[in-house]
Amino acid sequence: MSAVTSPVRVGVLGCGNVGAALVGQLTAEAEAIEARTGHRLEVAKVAVRNVSKERPVELPDGVLTNDAGAVVNDPTIDVVVEMIGGIEPARTLVLDALKNGKPVVTANKELLANVGAELFAAAEAAGRDLLFEAAVGGGIPIIRPLRESLVGERIRRIMGIVNGTTNYILTKMSEEGAAYTDALAEAQSLGYAERDPTADVEGYDAGAKAAILASIAFGSSVVAGDVYHEGISGVTVDDIAFAHRLGYEVKLLAIADQGDDGRIAVRVHPAMLPKEHPLASVRESFNAVFVEGQAVGQLMFYGRGAGGGPSGSAVLGDLIDAAVNLRRGAHATVGSLPRASIRPIDEVRSEYYLNLEVADRPGVLHAVSGVFAEHGVSIRSMEQEGLGDDARIVFITHDAPEAAVQSTLHDLRLLDVVRTVTSVLRVVGE
Amino acid sequence: MSAVTSPVRVGVLGCGNVGAALVGQLTAEAEAIEARTGHRLEVAKVAVRNVSKERPVELPDGVLTNDAGAVVNDPTIDVVVEMIGGIEPARTLVLDALKNGKPVVTANKELLANVGAELFAAAEAAGRDLLFEAAVGGGIPIIRPLRESLVGERIRRIMGIVNGTTNYILTKMSEEGAAYTDALAEAQSLGYAERDPTADVEGYDAGAKAAILASIAFGSSVVAGDVYHEGISGVTVDDIAFAHRLGYEVKLLAIADQGDDGRIAVRVHPAMLPKEHPLASVRESFNAVFVEGQAVGQLMFYGRGAGGGPSGSAVLGDLIDAAVNLRRGAHATVGSLPRASIRPIDEVRSEYYLNLEVADRPGVLHAVSGVFAEHGVSIRSMEQEGLGDDARIVFITHDAPEAAVQSTLHDLRLLDVVRTVTSVLRVVGE
Repeated sequence: MSAVTSPVRVGVLGCGNVGAALVGQLTAEAEAIEARTGHRLEVAKVAVRNVSKERPVELPDGVLTNDAGAVVNDPTIDVVVEMIGGIEPARTLVLDALKNGKPVVTANKELLANVGAELFAAAEAAGRDLLFEAAVGGGIPIIRPLRESLVGERIRRIMGIVNGTTNYILTKMSEEGAAYTDALAEAQSLGYAERDPTADVEGYDAGAKAAILASIAFGSSVVAGDVYHEGISGVTVDDIAFAHRLGYEVKLLAIADQGDDGRIAVRVHPAMLPKEHPLASVRESFNAVFVEGQAVGQLMFYGRGAGGGPSGSAVLGDLIDAAVNLRRGAHATVGSLPRASIRPIDEVRSEYYLNLEVADRPGVLHAVSGVFAEHGVSIRSMEQEGLGDDARIVFITHDAPEAAVQSTLHDLRLLDVVRTVTSVLRVVGE
Repeated sequence: MSAVTSPVRVGVLGCGNVGAALVGQLTAEAEAIEARTGHRLEVAKVAVRNVSKERPVELPDGVLTNDAGAVVNDPTIDVVVEMIGGIEPARTLVLDALKNGKPVVTANKELLANVGAELFAAAEAAGRDLLFEAAVGGGIPIIRPLRESLVGERIRRIMGIVNGTTNYILTKMSEEGAAYTDALAEAQSLGYAERDPTADVEGYDAGAKAAILASIAFGSSVVAGDVYHEGISGVTVDDIAFAHRLGYEVKLLAIADQGDDGRIAVRVHPAMLPKEHPLASVRESFNAVFVEGQAVGQLMFYGRGAGGGPSGSAVLGDLIDAAVNLRRGAHATVGSLPRASIRPIDEVRSEYYLNLEVADRPGVLHAVSGVFAEHGVSIRSMEQEGLGDDARIVFITHDAPEAAVQSTLHDLRLLDVVRTVTSVLRVVGE
C-alpha cells in the first residue's frame, strides 16, 4: 500500500519520558507504519513548558513550542496527543482539540478517572476518537481488547496488578524477605517509586486505573472517588511468610465486579492469592490484568505497566488508529456512559485471613469462634501455634460481607483473651 | 445509542461446538450489543451438513439449511461466519462471500495457515473485513492486538503455548509424574485430545497457529509448510524431573522470530523454560502468547485456547467489528503479504539440554567435551552422576546453531564411551 494522502500532522502536548519515547519510535518506524497503513505520521508540534530544556530526542526547528493552546487550535494539526498529566489544563486542551475536530490520544489516568464521562461525551459529539490505551497498564493492550474484542462479552470481574511500584516492593518482600521500608527505599533508589510514594503505596494510582477499567468493562461511568482503597504500607514480612505457608502470594489488587443487580464494586487492597493463580506469578514491576467473562472464561494481559518505551508504544498504537480513522471518516466510541450504581464496600463479599495473638489458655478458641458465629462469619480453616505464654491463631473465613467481618473484628478486639489482631487480609481468586 | 438501521443479517457456515456457542451468545447478548454499538445482529442462516440433527441451540424455522453455497450468494445476508474447518469447500465459500461484498469471520486455522495470503488479498480487493481472532488462542484477544495495538511496534519474537491438549498432558506429567501415555489417555477421556492425537501431539496444530501469528506479526506470508515441527511424544517424565532440578519447566512452544536480515524462523518443539518465565506457569489446557517488541518489551496474552464459549466469544467480537465496519463503509486490512523469507532450522540458534548415558571411566568427559569443542558448541553447565557401571552426564550448552548441535549429536553417538543420547531439548526464554 502506498500513501496517496498528505502526512497526518501530530501535535504532542508534553514531552517527558513517554513523550520523548513516542517521538523517537514514531520517527524510527514512520516508513514501516506508512507501508502497513498507507498513512505517513509526522510530529508537527511539541508543546512543552520550557523550550530551552535539553531533550533526549532531536526535533526539527520550529516544532517545539510553549503554547499548548495554540497547538489544539492550529488548523494544520490533525491529531493531538495529550501527555501533560493532571486535570487542568489537560481537560480544557482535550475538550478544545475535540471541538476543533481533532482526535485525541491521552495517557492521562487522572483525567480519565475524574472527568472521563465528560470527555467521552465530547468525543462522541465531535465524532472523533478519544483513545487512552496507555492510561492503564502502560504498554499492555487492555483497553482496546475490552472495548473491541470483548464488546459482546458479559464481563463478570476484572482483577489487576496495575501499579508496578507496589508490585516491585511486594516482590522484594516475598522473594528476599525484605522489610517494607527497605523495599520501598530500594524502589525509590531505582526510580520506580517517587520521593513521596503515597499515590502508589496507598493505592490511589491503582484506584484511578480501576475506575477506568470498570467504566470500560461495564459501560458505566465509575470515577476515582468511587473506589475503596487500602495500601500496602501495613503489609509485613510476617504476613507474607504466613501467606506462603498457606499456599498464597500477597499482591496489591485492583478489583471491579458487577453483580446481578447491576451494581458495581471497585476496590484496591492487598490480597492473598493462591500461588497457582496467574496473577500470583506476576513479578517485579510488571503489570497484569485478569478478566473473567461469561463466555470467554479467564483471560490475562501481562506486560510493562510503565516506562517510556512501553507507554510510548501504546500511545503510538492509538495514534495510528486515530490517524487511520480520521482519514476514513470513522471513529471508535465509548458513547455516553450512564453514572454507575456503586455497591459500597460494606456489602462487598470476600474471604478473609485473620491473624490474632491470644492468651494461651483453655476456652480461648471457644470464645473467639463465638464472635465469628455471632456475626454469621463462617470459618474455613484454623491453625493455632504457641508463642510462650500466648498463642497465635490464624483463620481463613468463607466468603462474608465486609460489614460482618468489620463487626467481628471490632468484637474480637473487645475480648480480653485477644491480645491483638495482628493482621487482616482478603483472600481472593479461588 | 439506538439502532437507526436494519438488523445486520449473519450467515453461519457450520454449527458444531463453537457455532452453537456463538449463536447462543449472540442471542443472549443481542440487546446489550445493540445498546453498545447501535447495531442489531441477527442469525439469518445456519448452514449444516445434516439439518435434522439435534442441536444444543434453538433456531427459528427456516434458519437451518444444508446449502452453504446459497448462504454466501444470498443478497440478504450481510456477513458470513465460516466454521466448517479444513481447506475446501471453506476456501471457495470464503472467496465467494468476499466477492459478493460480504465481510467474513473465520476460526479456521488450517485455511489461514495454508491459503491465508490468497484470502487476505481477496478481502483487500473486495474492500471487506476478513477477521480470524478465534483461529489462534481460542478466546484470547491476540490477533487484534497484533494487527492494531502493535501495528507501530517492531516485533522481535513471539513464543506461544497454543495447543491446550499438549499443555494439559505436560502439566499432568510435570505435576503428577504421570507417564506420557497415561496423560494422553486422560486427555482423550476428557475430550481434550482426539482419538488420533497426531495433529496435537506432533505439533501440526501449533504449527498452523505459529504460521498465522508469524504472518501477522512480521507482515509476510508464512505458511504451515514453513514451520519446523517436533512433538511431545518423545518427552519423558525423567526429562521433566531433570528440568525441575535445573529450575525449568517443559512446554511445547511455537516460536517465531525475525532476524536483522529480515528472515523469519518459525518452529514448534518442546523446550525447557526457566520457572520464572511467565509462560512456565501456564497450566492445564490454557494457552498463552508471549510477545517481545522493540519498544513495548515483553507482553503476554493468556486464556482458554479452545472450547465453544471462549472461541465463540472471539468470533462474536470479530462479528460485531465486521458489522460495525460494514455499516460505516470501512474495513480493517492485512493487505497483500509478500512471501516471507524463511531462515531454515539448521541456522536457528538455541541453547540445548543434552542428557547422555556414558561409560563410567576416566577420560570420558574429556572425549565427550572434545566433540562439543570440535563443532564449536560451547558448554554452559555440566552435571555428572553415577549409574552403577555407567554414568549420566547432563549438559546445557550456550547458544548454538541447530546444524552444529546436530553434528555434535551425530559424533557423540559414534563415540564408544557414549551408551545413548537419552534426550535433547532446547532451552529458551533466558
